[in-house]
Amino acid sequence: MADEVQGLAVGSKAVFTKSVSAADILKYAEVSGDTNPLHSDPTYAARTRFKQPIAHGMFGAGIISAALGTKLAPDSVVIYLGQNLQFRAPVMAGDILTATCTVTKVDTERNRLTLDTVVKKQDDTEVIRGEATVMVEALG
Amino acid sequence: MADEVQGLAVGSKAVFTKSVSAADILKYAEVSGDTNPLHSDPTYAARTRFKQPIAHGMFGAGIISAALGTKLAPDSVVIYLGQNLQFRAPVMAGDILTATCTVTKVDTERNRLTLDTVVKKQDDTEVIRGEATVMVEALG
Repeated sequence: MADEVQGLAVGSKAVFTKSVSAADILKYAEVSGDTNPLHSDPTYAARTRFKQPIAHGMFGAGIISAALGTKLAPDSVVIYLGQNLQFRAPVMAGDILTATCTVTKVDTERNRLTLDTVVKKQDDTEVIRGEATVMVEALG
Repeated sequence: MADEVQGLAVGSKAVFTKSVSAADILKYAEVSGDTNPLHSDPTYAARTRFKQPIAHGMFGAGIISAALGTKLAPDSVVIYLGQNLQFRAPVMAGDILTATCTVTKVDTERNRLTLDTVVKKQDDTEVIRGEATVMVEALG
């Protein structure tokens, strides 16, 4: 039998999809405190390489959190230990993001998983690539 | 003269402080889609090692984004290229988080900076440690 933690083994996947609205981006600015005008002001954004407002990089990272927190092991407790993120392409309002998290390593002694984490747009552009580490435990 | 990108050199700092309310945590759940009950349901959270609801790890990461996006170089364009995060301690409603980002490397040819990024609580507990990479450009 393959090594497993709470029923998860190498190759197990969690997928989460979310559309991004201008209202979502404003709400993320409020909740994070990152009110940089690149994310909200079209006149300001026109003076940057992006030419139009873009979502915060960490907004896209939230989609990975959603995949891990709601899809990976809904009947167990998933504890986020670490995440590496490379922000590779901008995200705009109207985009649809899909995070795919795939287990690459299982540490049964410490109940830990390593996952490859990728966020793509509707047109398959990769917007974030990285690696997550989580601990998965039974609910008490 | 030290190597600089848009006036920033090794040792330059950006600091951002934010208090965390239960409403903030719920709003983050909405905007990210990470509706795991560990962050919102006291009865569920009581069955985990945390015993009470905790903020999402990525919520704390947003405070780093806010430091980089609003404090590092408010007159320039700061583009987030990468971030490593180790989530080291839980954050609860009522905590006050401070992100401190300190430039550790300057790449003048590519206009890139590497920063040490630390998020601490009011009692000095380190909740996140990591490293950011950004590109900083003049506003057009």
